[in-house]
Amino acid sequence: MKLLFVGDVVGSMGREMISEYLPKLKKKHLPDFTIVNGENAASGRGITEKIYKQFIQDGANMVTLGNHAWDNRDVFDFIDGAKQIVRPANFPEGTPGQGLVFAQVHGKEVAVINAQGRTFMPPLDDPFAVLDDLVTEARKRTPIVFVDFHAEATSEKQAVGWFLDGRVSAVIGTHTHVQTADNRILPNGTAFMCDVGMTGPYDEVLGMNKDSVIKRFQTSLPVRFEVPKTGRKTLSACLIDIDHKTGKASKIERILINQDHPFMTEY
Amino acid sequence: MKLLFVGDVVGSMGREMISEYLPKLKKKHLPDFTIVNGENAASGRGITEKIYKQFIQDGANMVTLGNHAWDNRDVFDFIDGAKQIVRPANFPEGTPGQGLVFAQVHGKEVAVINAQGRTFMPPLDDPFAVLDDLVTEARKRTPIVFVDFHAEATSEKQAVGWFLDGRVSAVIGTHTHVQTADNRILPNGTAFMCDVGMTGPYDEVLGMNKDSVIKRFQTSLPVRFEVPKTGRKTLSACLIDIDHKTGKASKIERILINQDHPFMTEY
Amino acid sequence: MKLLFVGDVVGSMGREMISEYLPKLKKKHLPDFTIVNGENAASGRGITEKIYKQFIQDGANMVTLGNHAWDNRDVFDFIDGAKQIVRPANFPEGTPGQGLVFAQVHGKEVAVINAQGRTFMPPLDDPFAVLDDLVTEARKRTPIVFVDFHAEATSEKQAVGWFLDGRVSAVIGTHTHVQTADNRILPNGTAFMCDVGMTGPYDEVLGMNKDSVIKRFQTSLPVRFEVPKTGRKTLSACLIDIDHKTGKASKIERILINQDHPFMTEY
Amino acid sequence: MKLLFVGDVVGSMGREMISEYLPKLKKKHLPDFTIVNGENAASGRGITEKIYKQFIQDGANMVTLGNHAWDNRDVFDFIDGAKQIVRPANFPEGTPGQGLVFAQVHGKEVAVINAQGRTFMPPLDDPFAVLDDLVTEARKRTPIVFVDFHAEATSEKQAVGWFLDGRVSAVIGTHTHVQTADNRILPNGTAFMCDVGMTGPYDEVLGMNKDSVIKRFQTSLPVRFEVPKTGRKTLSACLIDIDHKTGKASKIERILINQDHPFMTEY
Ligand SMILES: [Fe+2]
Ligand SMILES: [Fe+2]
Ligand SMILES: [Fe+2]
Ligand SMILES: [Fe+2]
Ligand SMILES: [Fe+2]
Ligand SMILES: [Fe+2]
Ligand SMILES: [Fe+2]
Ligand SMILES: [Fe+2]
Repeated sequence: MKLLFVGDVVGSMGREMISEYLPKLKKKHLPDFTIVNGENAASGRGITEKIYKQFIQDGANMVTLGNHAWDNRDVFDFIDGAKQIVRPANFPEGTPGQGLVFAQVHGKEVAVINAQGRTFMPPLDDPFAVLDDLVTEARKRTPIVFVDFHAEATSEKQAVGWFLDGRVSAVIGTHTHVQTADNRILPNGTAFMCDVGMTGPYDEVLGMNKDSVIKRFQTSLPVRFEVPKTGRKTLSACLIDIDHKTGKASKIERILINQDHPFMTEY
Repeated sequence: MKLLFVGDVVGSMGREMISEYLPKLKKKHLPDFTIVNGENAASGRGITEKIYKQFIQDGANMVTLGNHAWDNRDVFDFIDGAKQIVRPANFPEGTPGQGLVFAQVHGKEVAVINAQGRTFMPPLDDPFAVLDDLVTEARKRTPIVFVDFHAEATSEKQAVGWFLDGRVSAVIGTHTHVQTADNRILPNGTAFMCDVGMTGPYDEVLGMNKDSVIKRFQTSLPVRFEVPKTGRKTLSACLIDIDHKTGKASKIERILINQDHPFMTEY
Repeated sequence: MKLLFVGDVVGSMGREMISEYLPKLKKKHLPDFTIVNGENAASGRGITEKIYKQFIQDGANMVTLGNHAWDNRDVFDFIDGAKQIVRPANFPEGTPGQGLVFAQVHGKEVAVINAQGRTFMPPLDDPFAVLDDLVTEARKRTPIVFVDFHAEATSEKQAVGWFLDGRVSAVIGTHTHVQTADNRILPNGTAFMCDVGMTGPYDEVLGMNKDSVIKRFQTSLPVRFEVPKTGRKTLSACLIDIDHKTGKASKIERILINQDHPFMTEY
Repeated sequence: MKLLFVGDVVGSMGREMISEYLPKLKKKHLPDFTIVNGENAASGRGITEKIYKQFIQDGANMVTLGNHAWDNRDVFDFIDGAKQIVRPANFPEGTPGQGLVFAQVHGKEVAVINAQGRTFMPPLDDPFAVLDDLVTEARKRTPIVFVDFHAEATSEKQAVGWFLDGRVSAVIGTHTHVQTADNRILPNGTAFMCDVGMTGPYDEVLGMNKDSVIKRFQTSLPVRFEVPKTGRKTLSACLIDIDHKTGKASKIERILINQDHPFMTEY
């Protein structure tokens, strides 16, 4: 089976890229399952039910989140009733939503796990211990297990990749908003890359207005970061081939769509 | 002119990759100027004079450093006398070594600047202010200015890239040890990528023994990180085309050499 | 001469303590000069011109600030015109306000410096270098130099104390909102204590609603911290005896006013 | 019952203070139970079995630890066999040692818990959740529960104090090495103070050679911190009165012994 994963959608420009290119990517690559990280979809901060539903309508089968999951309070009203959204599993017990969600694909089951790193990030439960448990739980039902590991530090991301190598189909990083070029199949069959990258403004800083961010770095004064609504856009994704019987990945390709990497119907 | 930049060389496996592939890369791509980041060259921690000289002998024209610059105390004995080594410029006044170094290439001058980020890193002087000054100083002598920005956060790296766009030939990030896929020419002619990646062990965590790193994450107990001396290796680099009159970059290519990306004499 | 310093005034309850007890403290202790840290005076976040003027009217001769200096944008409108307010000196060049301010007291001059730490705090210019310069500058005019070092880490605070011992009259810490019991005269005549403590709500967490703070720690979810407006209150201060000729301190006393430490007209 | 708690013993000077003053303090105050924090007892880094036994011989009934617990590898050899030592409870499952230890005092039982904060400290399990569980467990056996909360941030310390108010006899902070003046009985009967302070060198930075620490701050270069072996010394402690039937505290006094606070046989 083929799995398509699109990285952190930022604001309206990110959502426009999803609406425009998710159908095209699905037509071109024919993925069996599509996942979109939506932690920044609502003006860069969180997600709303309306946006979540739009992602599903645009062709996503699952939406993952991250540290910004809770920035828009709308999430608390719909996350428990929604079936295709996953939040970082290592928030404490009692947190709304689920960190492991199953979905049906052509009579198979796909398990999607979201977890968050702790290095250079706020304290949470140990992602290694939580992933260990959830992967064990998921594999009781299916060998096809996808992990969106939302983290800052490359060390923690690589460590999770090696830690889960052979036990999950893929460990793909999110959060830094920059696609890494380290996509590879680890020795025991897990597809890995440190970060799939972001989807939204192409000429800003992580999707936030670059002048504000530079001003903040230069002055150390409070500056409000806005997500621009116009300008050039980018989409970052990856495509993974998974053996539906063993759950092992055989191939992982990077996808970028922007002016420097124009979308082509044929390769 | 063509400039080749090789990312963080880690330990003996990294140095072996330099000795083996720097000559081959130079033969294949014919760069006019070659820079190697050597902050982790001595067992993952700092650099010695012997290693520095070996880099030069292997074909490097300049060696850059980073937060690990000072880990091996040998550096204090030779850095002030060495002409082809640059340390982060935003260490305080009185720090040994230089943060801006000039070199001659076919009658042209290349300015190489090294600076270090502050986000998720130890406090230092403001890299934006220091870079502003040093770039101004460098451009009085030459339009060809290369910046190795050694930093953790993608936000700070992108901000420096946009901040210097049009004023330097290239802003290339180091430190995360993972090559990013965002190599591009910014609108005003600066080549940019968040991180060029590392050179050394291919199957470890940032070049450090992966079992130790995983154990550290799992136990929170002190664990000594060693750099393995055997195993598969990787080299990460980029190649930049610069107009020697204007200093503007026209092209930036990523280079990876490892079992997943075998070196080919011909493309 | 006697100098009275009152620590971080938080919200309306803090301001009420100032209005009520500053006159009483002045009557009882007869300080020649009174300084109030006001970085949290406006609802816990920053300061307004109205509050600043109220502090002066209540008897303060100088107002110091900290990392929250800029939280209320009103500060940008009045800080450059105000003569009795000091902001952390190690913000970058071009920052509104001053980090060193002089005031006249009975024909003598008092220099007040505010600086901010970098350990566990946002990046700024090196406080040691900036303090070194400003203390040198201040001492050209007067031996009476007061430093409010606004910092988190006890290590950085003690280091600044020892660094300036004998060159300033006092190094008093602020920012942690908890008074320390380490008030002492360092061997060369500088009065020192790590933190003078806060002024405001007595039964909350740093002056913020304790239930919100606990909920934040327990859930890792976004929680808005409010400063309560009713309840028991505390005031934290210190009183320093300084030789007006040499600038050396001979005594530093801690002051707390709350239900556990009732204010007494006579000792 | 009376409980005496002595804060972070640093190096040989700290141990000398314990040997000299623990007997004197016990003779003067007649505590029923004495606890010593020993995380820095071995040259500032960890503890050895020999030092642990010396503490017991000098009069301690229990030794608590902190983030430096593991710095001296000797601890791994004896902690599981020792009955009077507690390490931070919120290290992950499988960590050597115990985070909750019971001891007998005149036919009563005292529960001692050690936990570590996460703000400005390395990631660990949630101290609030772990403390909630351990306090519940402890109270099944005894109402006399002492918590050494080893943490950096005053916010986290105060939050733990309020969180446990009425459920434990005392929450006393350690780790910053500076005694705070906020000792108080919270409304529901828990004795609280943010930090009891350190025991060891009086004229250094947290017990480490001050010149090295200042040099480190000024240069940002690696500097080795040593614990001096000679010079003036300090001891920091607190004394708590606890109702042995209800476990509620009625009084908490601060104790400092150094040249500025000489030990007196009679008050
Ligand atoms: Fe994101
Ligand atoms: Fe994120
Ligand atoms: Fe490196
Ligand atoms: Fe580095
Ligand atoms: Fe404050
Ligand atoms: Fe503050
Ligand atoms: Fe300690
Ligand atoms: Fe500690």
